[in-house]
Amino acid sequence: MSESRYTIGVDFGTESARAVLVDVADGREHSVEVHPYRNGVIDACLPEPDGDVVLGPDWALQDPNDYLDTFRIAVRRLVDGAGVDPRQVIGIGIDFTACTMLPTTADGTPLCFLDAHRRDPHAWVKLWKHHAAQPEADDINRVARELDQPWLDRYGGRISSEWFFPKALQILREAPDVYRAADRLVEAADWVVWQLTDVETRNNCTAGYKALWSADDGFPEPQFFEALEPGFGEVVDDKMSRAVVAIGQAAGRISERAAAWTGLLAGTAVAVANVDAHVSVPAATVTRPGTLVAIMGTSICHVVLADDAPAISGMCGVVEDGVIPGFYGYEAGQAAVGDLFGWFVEHGVPPVYHEAARARGVSLHEVLADAAAALRPGESGLLALDWWNGNRSVLVDADLSGVLLGMTLATEAPEIYRALIEATAFGTRVIIDAFEAGGIAIDGVVACGGLPDRNPLLMQIYADVTGRSWRVAASSQTPALGSAMFAAVAAGREAGGYATIEAAADSMAHLRDETFVPNEANRPVYDELYAEYVRLHDLFGRGGDPALKTLKRIRLGSVGA
Amino acid sequence: MSESRYTIGVDFGTESARAVLVDVADGREHSVEVHPYRNGVIDACLPEPDGDVVLGPDWALQDPNDYLDTFRIAVRRLVDGAGVDPRQVIGIGIDFTACTMLPTTADGTPLCFLDAHRRDPHAWVKLWKHHAAQPEADDINRVARELDQPWLDRYGGRISSEWFFPKALQILREAPDVYRAADRLVEAADWVVWQLTDVETRNNCTAGYKALWSADDGFPEPQFFEALEPGFGEVVDDKMSRAVVAIGQAAGRISERAAAWTGLLAGTAVAVANVDAHVSVPAATVTRPGTLVAIMGTSICHVVLADDAPAISGMCGVVEDGVIPGFYGYEAGQAAVGDLFGWFVEHGVPPVYHEAARARGVSLHEVLADAAAALRPGESGLLALDWWNGNRSVLVDADLSGVLLGMTLATEAPEIYRALIEATAFGTRVIIDAFEAGGIAIDGVVACGGLPDRNPLLMQIYADVTGRSWRVAASSQTPALGSAMFAAVAAGREAGGYATIEAAADSMAHLRDETFVPNEANRPVYDELYAEYVRLHDLFGRGGDPALKTLKRIRLGSVGA
Repeated sequence: MSESRYTIGVDFGTESARAVLVDVADGREHSVEVHPYRNGVIDACLPEPDGDVVLGPDWALQDPNDYLDTFRIAVRRLVDGAGVDPRQVIGIGIDFTACTMLPTTADGTPLCFLDAHRRDPHAWVKLWKHHAAQPEADDINRVARELDQPWLDRYGGRISSEWFFPKALQILREAPDVYRAADRLVEAADWVVWQLTDVETRNNCTAGYKALWSADDGFPEPQFFEALEPGFGEVVDDKMSRAVVAIGQAAGRISERAAAWTGLLAGTAVAVANVDAHVSVPAATVTRPGTLVAIMGTSICHVVLADDAPAISGMCGVVEDGVIPGFYGYEAGQAAVGDLFGWFVEHGVPPVYHEAARARGVSLHEVLADAAAALRPGESGLLALDWWNGNRSVLVDADLSGVLLGMTLATEAPEIYRALIEATAFGTRVIIDAFEAGGIAIDGVVACGGLPDRNPLLMQIYADVTGRSWRVAASSQTPALGSAMFAAVAAGREAGGYATIEAAADSMAHLRDETFVPNEANRPVYDELYAEYVRLHDLFGRGGDPALKTLKRIRLGSVGA
Repeated sequence: MSESRYTIGVDFGTESARAVLVDVADGREHSVEVHPYRNGVIDACLPEPDGDVVLGPDWALQDPNDYLDTFRIAVRRLVDGAGVDPRQVIGIGIDFTACTMLPTTADGTPLCFLDAHRRDPHAWVKLWKHHAAQPEADDINRVARELDQPWLDRYGGRISSEWFFPKALQILREAPDVYRAADRLVEAADWVVWQLTDVETRNNCTAGYKALWSADDGFPEPQFFEALEPGFGEVVDDKMSRAVVAIGQAAGRISERAAAWTGLLAGTAVAVANVDAHVSVPAATVTRPGTLVAIMGTSICHVVLADDAPAISGMCGVVEDGVIPGFYGYEAGQAAVGDLFGWFVEHGVPPVYHEAARARGVSLHEVLADAAAALRPGESGLLALDWWNGNRSVLVDADLSGVLLGMTLATEAPEIYRALIEATAFGTRVIIDAFEAGGIAIDGVVACGGLPDRNPLLMQIYADVTGRSWRVAASSQTPALGSAMFAAVAAGREAGGYATIEAAADSMAHLRDETFVPNEANRPVYDELYAEYVRLHDLFGRGGDPALKTLKRIRLGSVGA
């Protein structure tokens, strides 16, 4: 029997990074190291000694050193502590939040490492949830419509302030020195691969989903960027690269420097970088059309593969080869799911349930879910629109807000908890219906992420509401597993890996045995409630009733007053 | 200086009765006795030794002995303990919840006092909130429409299951023996006056507001009652009396028997009985048109006087001489106000606020109100429809339920608390606007009841939202004070009382010094929010959007399933 082969997947999250050593033969997760970032999310002031530099509202930065420390500390510990010969580790792959981007010099040095720029916040990493570039996003959407940009359709007609070009444009406008000094504006995902390999690549997943790139059309033309802001026209050619590499390729090999950090052998294969949600898809066993993958956590990211790319209004994006080579990958999203339940648990639950949770030694979620599970569908008389954080798909409208209907003096917290779960399930069904209306069949769903682990009631409600069977990925860390799978593909079959991501998925990705099958007895009531949800969704979400926009306008006026 | 004169007002509430000894000269409340009913609200089974007789859902009974004990114990204690010569007490008046009614023999003996009927729940007092006669109310509303009954307009087109004839009809249908044995079906208010005086009277306030009577048309005709149910046609002539006495009159004088119970002198004047809400109006200083009285507690009862009686859709009732002789008295209502805030405090507030209340030694309401007071109008982005207990006026629809819009992940409990207060204020403004649209001017408001005492934020919001100055009655027990005032009128000027309730009010009723004046800075935002409230009120309340009815239908179906 030959010696085992391993790959390492590193998932760079918002507060920490997670490195997993995976057995290439069967995907078994041999060992895990978590690295909490020393500077975490920088949203108040810069780290010392520059703590006197205060950030504005909606800013969210990171420190590139925290990414490097992940290799120096967590990956190092993983390699050293696993009892595995580094020669057995045939590849490494990484995934990242996106768009998380930074300005660097031509050799990849972050501008925030240089004394000349360190005290300028624009020299640091802009994290995905840096929302201070909203004016730039608004301008991009407006100018794109005025100039009738063809790429707008691919993104549901509107892009987010979280994406690449709003962040880049904000640097130019607010810190022209930093913009000028930046030889490169680069995704953090690609930057860490660059640090490992000394080779600069730009992955097609972030380029496609966050930077308006497509295989057919490339990036938008300089005229568009120049129309946005004089001096921004050459942003792609001056600061980026029109060379984009598809996921599933090797980006390069571990350099001598990176070998010293990580304990891996120089020459070890490094996969092209990926995005945390998208890399989860093959780790959830899905490598072909017909099955929706729901990455369920604070929000839900929905990914589905298709053979072609019909325009589907209100989706976050569609990228050819963006998830699995050979297919178009569609992305949709719900902006508040776990966050919505978390909001309710923090802000809407009276002490009696907190005390019950303490007495039983379980979470408040569990106490509420147990009580909610005893209710029949429709019994509470409640219905919600789950827009506590706006609507990401299919309305693509951040200004929408939550609605709850049907309360009486007898309404209790577990009923509201269940209504919120049901509302997010209805939101998922709207997305599934939109895909199917566009000609993309969804026969089943695989869930992954933190939520399915903890909440069987939620999974059953999602099955009942959507009328589809829901399976759950076996791994509770699908992003890192997916990155390890792409690492095995980057290593290639000769090195003991795989020729394709499909082959890697066949061996390395698994589902749990449990299937959440729709309870037919619940379907008619949920169909009725869903019809009401859709009616109210369209009423409040498509301009039929202006209440939510009016309230937002009054609110902004009141704060400004 | 002549000796002081006193009257006693007794307010019969739901759980207890409150007797107050009042100085006739200036309305000063000399002393108070509260009598908690021994059997309280009987809603599960009959009192021992008949505890094996179980009541159905929505039943609510009382024991007439609890009313008599009020005289034997509380009034007795008041008279004996006040240090006042009984000759100085020139009159007594009472007010009651309504419609609270019972069957008696011809001499006034409650049927539930007789062994032959004691074990039949229909022989007991049906309390105002006995809701088990809903089928009878539905039939009455249907038949009234079919037979085009003219009185229907006076009650906003629909009567409640709480009223007199639904309760009477339920007795006939479910306990024909009791119905046959009842020589009288009588309001508990009138029954206690009968017990004091040995004279049977029927007051025009309960007759008008709860039993379809008017001075011009009397009661509905026998044909109507016979169409409801064979054998019910002669209910008025057989079981009641077409002789109705107006409030402000003396019903009679204390009998020897009642003198022995109460310690009052035989011959002391007894006022015609009244209803708790309506009797509060002169106690809140209001005896003429132009000022709305808002009796604010778990719900709000609004009363306004008018020189004539234009039809105003959706009001609870209008009765000539029903509140102040010489005027039409209009009644409107909001079904959940204090109850709504109570629901939120019990079911929607997380522990951190409970802990703050404990640490500060104040109520949870006060903690929430303090935080809510720091918000600008509109700042929360929230808006509610305050229908947690349906809508009593102007939609008259118990099937409506609550709506809350505008939540985000940043929404906190004090914001919801304030939105609920604002929603009830908007509900009050809808009622004021309906009066004014009908030609009844409302220039100012006087509030009384438990809520204004405790909640200056609420009073200020009501002033800001309605654009009217709000005053507050000086007495915190306006019903008992009002009854004592009517007692002074029943005693008459010669005995040291007053000739009219207006004269009594001039001397005995007072307002607090404080006036809640609309804050002009808040008016424009509240006008905007109110416009949204009215739009959504009409959308969800007048059939434009069926959501609330659909949810109720699904809920009933789910429970029945």
